[in-house]
Amino acid sequence: MNELGGYEFDDLRVGLSASFAKTITETDIVLFAAVSGDNNALHVNAEYAATTMFKSRIAHGMLSASLISAAIANKLPGPGSIYLSQSLRFVAPVRAGDTVHALIVIKEIIPARSRVVLGTDCTVNGIVVISGEAMVLLPAAAQTAPGRRQAEAVIA
Amino acid sequence: MNELGGYEFDDLRVGLSASFAKTITETDIVLFAAVSGDNNALHVNAEYAATTMFKSRIAHGMLSASLISAAIANKLPGPGSIYLSQSLRFVAPVRAGDTVHALIVIKEIIPARSRVVLGTDCTVNGIVVISGEAMVLLPAAAQTAPGRRQAEAVIA
Repeated sequence: MNELGGYEFDDLRVGLSASFAKTITETDIVLFAAVSGDNNALHVNAEYAATTMFKSRIAHGMLSASLISAAIANKLPGPGSIYLSQSLRFVAPVRAGDTVHALIVIKEIIPARSRVVLGTDCTVNGIVVISGEAMVLLPAAAQTAPGRRQAEAVIA
Repeated sequence: MNELGGYEFDDLRVGLSASFAKTITETDIVLFAAVSGDNNALHVNAEYAATTMFKSRIAHGMLSASLISAAIANKLPGPGSIYLSQSLRFVAPVRAGDTVHALIVIKEIIPARSRVVLGTDCTVNGIVVISGEAMVLLPAAAQTAPGRRQAEAVIA
């Protein structure tokens, strides 16, 4: 563990997993519309949503996907992790009141580059709603060190 | 255009593009941490962030990426669009005060499945901060129709 509680490189093993769960509420949907600027009628217009295959308003896919970022940052590899890439396949809708579980598992460790590849699924009641994969730079590699080049990288 | 202002299938052409821009503010970062549960020290701990390659707090990558969802929902294909997939490569940090431009362009049209493939880049001051690709189901295909199976799909 590093000073923030994140994993050090030697702690990591393929198959190591973690999860983060959060109930997506009406408030989350309204706030996500505000910060993203995404006011798609599917999310904010109940009358329109009733005419679609979903029958009622659904949460933004990127809102549920953001729980993956939380699982990475809070759990594995943990605080200080830096997101390099993420793929997302949205396979089922999420509605206000649903509890989304972001499940991450180490699929590959790349020692030379201080990176891990993670399987990243989100489920509701055991049903996958988002599937995908992430690549993350470990916290220690993000700390300032002499001679380290300025990474072409961001966030978790 | 459909009733909400979204594109109909016959309106679409490869190369058609649109953009949505939004300044990412301190407030956005705080609200995004709340709705996502992602309190990575890089986003919420200025003392820690100062020790990293970024030197100061940065915005969540998924916050900037959510502007792609907004560009799809607000502009192209427009209201009622349904996100099927998104790939994201985070290539440079975004900080509070930066104005992120989400730029989307039609790369492929798949008539048989009412889908489009979009190139999706986000830039700050003309520099790419996120690159990726999305697949979207057109609004009309999401409307309820007899015999249409319940789509395995979500959002924009």
